[in-house]
Amino acid sequence: MTKPLRIALAGLGNVGAGVVKLLDTNAALIERRAGRAIEIVAVSARDRSRDRGVDIARFAWADDAADLATRDDVDVVVELVGGSDGPALTLARATLAGGKSFVTANKAMLAHHGLELADAAEAKGVALKYEAAVAGGIPVIKGLREGAAANEIQHVFGILNGTCNYILSTMESAGRDFGDVLAEAQALGYAEADPSFDIDGVDAAHKLSILASLAFGAKVDFGSVAITGIRDVKAADIAEAAALGFKIRLVGLGEATAKGLVQRVHPCLVPVDHPLAHVTGSLNAVVAEGNYVGRLLFQGRGAGEGPTASAVVADLIDIARGEYGPAFGMPVASLAAMPAAPAGERLGRAYLRFTVVDKPGVLAELTAAMRDAGVSIESLIQRGPAADGGVLIVLVTHEGPERSVAHALEKLEGSPSLTAAPMWMHILEA
Amino acid sequence: MTKPLRIALAGLGNVGAGVVKLLDTNAALIERRAGRAIEIVAVSARDRSRDRGVDIARFAWADDAADLATRDDVDVVVELVGGSDGPALTLARATLAGGKSFVTANKAMLAHHGLELADAAEAKGVALKYEAAVAGGIPVIKGLREGAAANEIQHVFGILNGTCNYILSTMESAGRDFGDVLAEAQALGYAEADPSFDIDGVDAAHKLSILASLAFGAKVDFGSVAITGIRDVKAADIAEAAALGFKIRLVGLGEATAKGLVQRVHPCLVPVDHPLAHVTGSLNAVVAEGNYVGRLLFQGRGAGEGPTASAVVADLIDIARGEYGPAFGMPVASLAAMPAAPAGERLGRAYLRFTVVDKPGVLAELTAAMRDAGVSIESLIQRGPAADGGVLIVLVTHEGPERSVAHALEKLEGSPSLTAAPMWMHILEA
Repeated sequence: MTKPLRIALAGLGNVGAGVVKLLDTNAALIERRAGRAIEIVAVSARDRSRDRGVDIARFAWADDAADLATRDDVDVVVELVGGSDGPALTLARATLAGGKSFVTANKAMLAHHGLELADAAEAKGVALKYEAAVAGGIPVIKGLREGAAANEIQHVFGILNGTCNYILSTMESAGRDFGDVLAEAQALGYAEADPSFDIDGVDAAHKLSILASLAFGAKVDFGSVAITGIRDVKAADIAEAAALGFKIRLVGLGEATAKGLVQRVHPCLVPVDHPLAHVTGSLNAVVAEGNYVGRLLFQGRGAGEGPTASAVVADLIDIARGEYGPAFGMPVASLAAMPAAPAGERLGRAYLRFTVVDKPGVLAELTAAMRDAGVSIESLIQRGPAADGGVLIVLVTHEGPERSVAHALEKLEGSPSLTAAPMWMHILEA
Repeated sequence: MTKPLRIALAGLGNVGAGVVKLLDTNAALIERRAGRAIEIVAVSARDRSRDRGVDIARFAWADDAADLATRDDVDVVVELVGGSDGPALTLARATLAGGKSFVTANKAMLAHHGLELADAAEAKGVALKYEAAVAGGIPVIKGLREGAAANEIQHVFGILNGTCNYILSTMESAGRDFGDVLAEAQALGYAEADPSFDIDGVDAAHKLSILASLAFGAKVDFGSVAITGIRDVKAADIAEAAALGFKIRLVGLGEATAKGLVQRVHPCLVPVDHPLAHVTGSLNAVVAEGNYVGRLLFQGRGAGEGPTASAVVADLIDIARGEYGPAFGMPVASLAAMPAAPAGERLGRAYLRFTVVDKPGVLAELTAAMRDAGVSIESLIQRGPAADGGVLIVLVTHEGPERSVAHALEKLEGSPSLTAAPMWMHILEA
């Protein structure tokens, strides 16, 4: 009988407790699949006594997670503490430096320190694995790192944040406004008390930077992701988009172009027959398009105790089987330093929403600004004044350089005709 | 520099030529990802001189594919010859016995001889890999073997045959009949001259038996797959199903139940909002549901030169990286011999279509047969007589044991009221 794979687990929140439950419940099956038992031997968390619905008294306890890294009876440390720096990073560095494998669900840490950690893992020939960091239970890290590995990937994009997708699809189905749905989501526990990492797109951007590295063989470059969240999406945008044949989704998009790497997270108009339009509630989905495989779609539950634990344990099984290699699919030295593509050169169609005063000449002012910037209008809707006297004008442009749209909006900046900042969303063509 | 991984390629049809093209086009990227070059050194095919759009003069040539297995300058043999037995099997046995790794797209051979070959690979510590055998470019073998490995899988099902899905979705969009669309598909090269393996469900059944083995940790058991093809699906079925809120898809379904393993391939009614309902044309999709991860969906191109070559080369990259293990996710000795679940005990709803004579009492006869067998009717549609005088009666049952439906149909067998055999399709509830 092969020796068990011995695990230390740092962090016993929902996901940590889920990992303990999963390893208990599916133990026999996992031993068959992994070729050996996978056993937790030590744990660490903030509070030893909290009831988590799992028995942790059988495990050794460490007050300081960093102590897990140096235990002789541990092969792999699993980090479910979170945070890009601080204790999580200290633990990661100590674990890898000590020649143990490291499994994490921490996208923030990987987005900021992934290359350093991958380098450290390579130096010791141990695993750095992080399937749970992106899209929860969906094996999309594996899908890109291995499944699509034969392909030059043109673009990778997806719905990477379940909280945002829940809010947008509830706004869509219930016709309600953002603040209202967010408050409800917080009450239900679907959104954090401080929801900014989710709704401002930062969490999705962390994940996108990891996917882009895997897809394009590029160094993780979180700093160059352009990020727009969903705070400014109104119920009216969703209704007008629907009238035009689109749904609104927060999309993370990475694209390899001749001029460099495009990385952006932004609310997008998605055609109603696009696979991402069918992704509702807290589901996640990722699309990757390769030069041989064509379009691949991965969909499933992107968060939560069960799916995240499933991904963590899949990583442990890979390690138990000895089936692992460089964290980002190639040695760090082979990853390209791809420049960020210059903003504005990308071609696309845009959705623009203006909130204007109800007086003569406003439409002429808007359309003149578009014309002067070289933006061609494909469709335009103006509705009669709402109860508050405000008038919405919504338009979709023909394909053109994004820079032109930016110019048109600059021209309109400060115009007394506008009662609020315009809303600009891209239309997902891929 | 690590030594290249040296490949021998048997079979130079579309997919074989695609593998050559892919390894040429993406050579630099593959070398970065695999950590070493992947180089074809020898090939074999029926006709050496045929123009395949790729230069094969640079490779050593074998008239007999079996000779590839014994070359000293080869690490991996790729088999793209096809056929469950014959030259493909001879080559597989010789390759593995000689201690070389083996990559194949041959679902028929794996369905019939997968366990023997996995055993042979294990004995020599080499790889047996077959991502291309199921769902073309979609990494669903990897998704089940590794991505979902932490889970007890409840069921796995999907659209596994692009030809059938193309025919059914064209019948649906064009309102045309089966024979008509099949003939066109043959003319366009989407269906084989002898289409029976596809349209009778055998190809999907081969694939299903492989998926079921991976999902349930069970020995491949092709012999117990219940198979119904799509020959008897009429345009009228598609129209009536649409009226009831369903689409018709050929679904391969595997389910682990307390009474044993359910494996079946059959045309199914799929609710219009089900992910499989969105899968049109020649796409493939696979859904797996696990006790922690929940529902995973994988979708993409299930056949064709590019996607299939992508899957073959993904396997080669895994081998080059040394990231591989037992073919069915655990040693053959650990795979369970699961009994087939007794037919008829499964609960479900059924769609039944009767073609009847237009005379009094027919409906009473049908409904009495249902009642006597304990089948409860949820909805029923009878249309006025068609031009040929035939009358269609379509009904959907409430959930109940499938055996009861079978009894009702037995009672009606030979009834002069029926002018054709009834059509029975399951309703996909999962």
